[in-house]
Amino acid sequence: MQEEKIERLIEMFRTLPGVGYKNAQRYAYSIIEGSSDRAKNFCEAISEAKAKIGFCKVCGNFTDKEVCSICSRRDHKTICVVKEPKDVISMEKVKNYNGVYHVLFGTISPLNNKGPDDIKIKELLSRISNGKVEEVIMATNPDVEGDATAMYIAKLLKPLGVKVTRLAQGVAMGSDLEYADEVTLSRALEARRTID
Amino acid sequence: MQEEKIERLIEMFRTLPGVGYKNAQRYAYSIIEGSSDRAKNFCEAISEAKAKIGFCKVCGNFTDKEVCSICSRRDHKTICVVKEPKDVISMEKVKNYNGVYHVLFGTISPLNNKGPDDIKIKELLSRISNGKVEEVIMATNPDVEGDATAMYIAKLLKPLGVKVTRLAQGVAMGSDLEYADEVTLSRALEARRTID
Repeated sequence: MQEEKIERLIEMFRTLPGVGYKNAQRYAYSIIEGSSDRAKNFCEAISEAKAKIGFCKVCGNFTDKEVCSICSRRDHKTICVVKEPKDVISMEKVKNYNGVYHVLFGTISPLNNKGPDDIKIKELLSRISNGKVEEVIMATNPDVEGDATAMYIAKLLKPLGVKVTRLAQGVAMGSDLEYADEVTLSRALEARRTID
Repeated sequence: MQEEKIERLIEMFRTLPGVGYKNAQRYAYSIIEGSSDRAKNFCEAISEAKAKIGFCKVCGNFTDKEVCSICSRRDHKTICVVKEPKDVISMEKVKNYNGVYHVLFGTISPLNNKGPDDIKIKELLSRISNGKVEEVIMATNPDVEGDATAMYIAKLLKPLGVKVTRLAQGVAMGSDLEYADEVTLSRALEARRTID
């Protein structure tokens, strides 16, 4: 028993990831109760972002320029390969990384019909072909698909003489051994380091 | 290190109730990754809802007509008084209620500088002045402000010869006595009923 226009707005909010009916309703009511200016700003922000944001022609990340702000200012000797644009934000929290990124837009995942040609591996190879890249850090997720993708790319890159590394896997800081799963523990044990 | 236009969209999503930075970012990325049609539909839904949705001139609830679909089809002998439009949706889940509503748009709350004149009490009185209303059900929230508002309105309405009732307060169905607070338990005890 909702008015049709409210229902339509609720349905739009439901298309956002992880938003159920109750939350969508809260969002819709908040828009209706809010000022007209806010609704206008919201629309503008959506249409501007959609219209102006494209892909960086170097790393593939979202940008409103031809080359994104990271690629235009950073050291191109190191490339950190991630699955999605949001992973760039996560990696950027590590303040002392001064290299650039490469966004794959997915991982190799046979179950989802995604092969090597469906993600941006060719683009990565052509970036490396100039011979100036010294290290490629594989920062795909530490899961089966992320690992497989990292292995696949590493095999492609090694003949080109570029060093390929992978983010260390082990027990997370602040976590509790009691709750660590056996795969994590076995990786942590395998990659154990000498205490100096 | 986000592009300005993405940042602006994230900030807009953050103005929605209960949305933090991480979720706002997910929503923004979902818009950018989605189709242009979807972004366009989203904008239209927002601006249409904001432009066309107004208040029902009878009950005060949101509607795109002069009189909302509930007021135009239901029995006006019973009025259920609620705090906010979203409470109408909750009450409507009770399928066998056939009366109408009155939305107060707030409760009396001295701490938030809200007095009786700041909510739609005058409008309720004028609805009752035609003498056709038989019962007013106070369905404000079962908290201090909701109770105070219900008491205040009940006092105003009694001289007019209208029956004023309040939603029963007690232990919720499916809950556990162990976790019920003492106020709820004391209300439930006070309002105990004979088992036939």
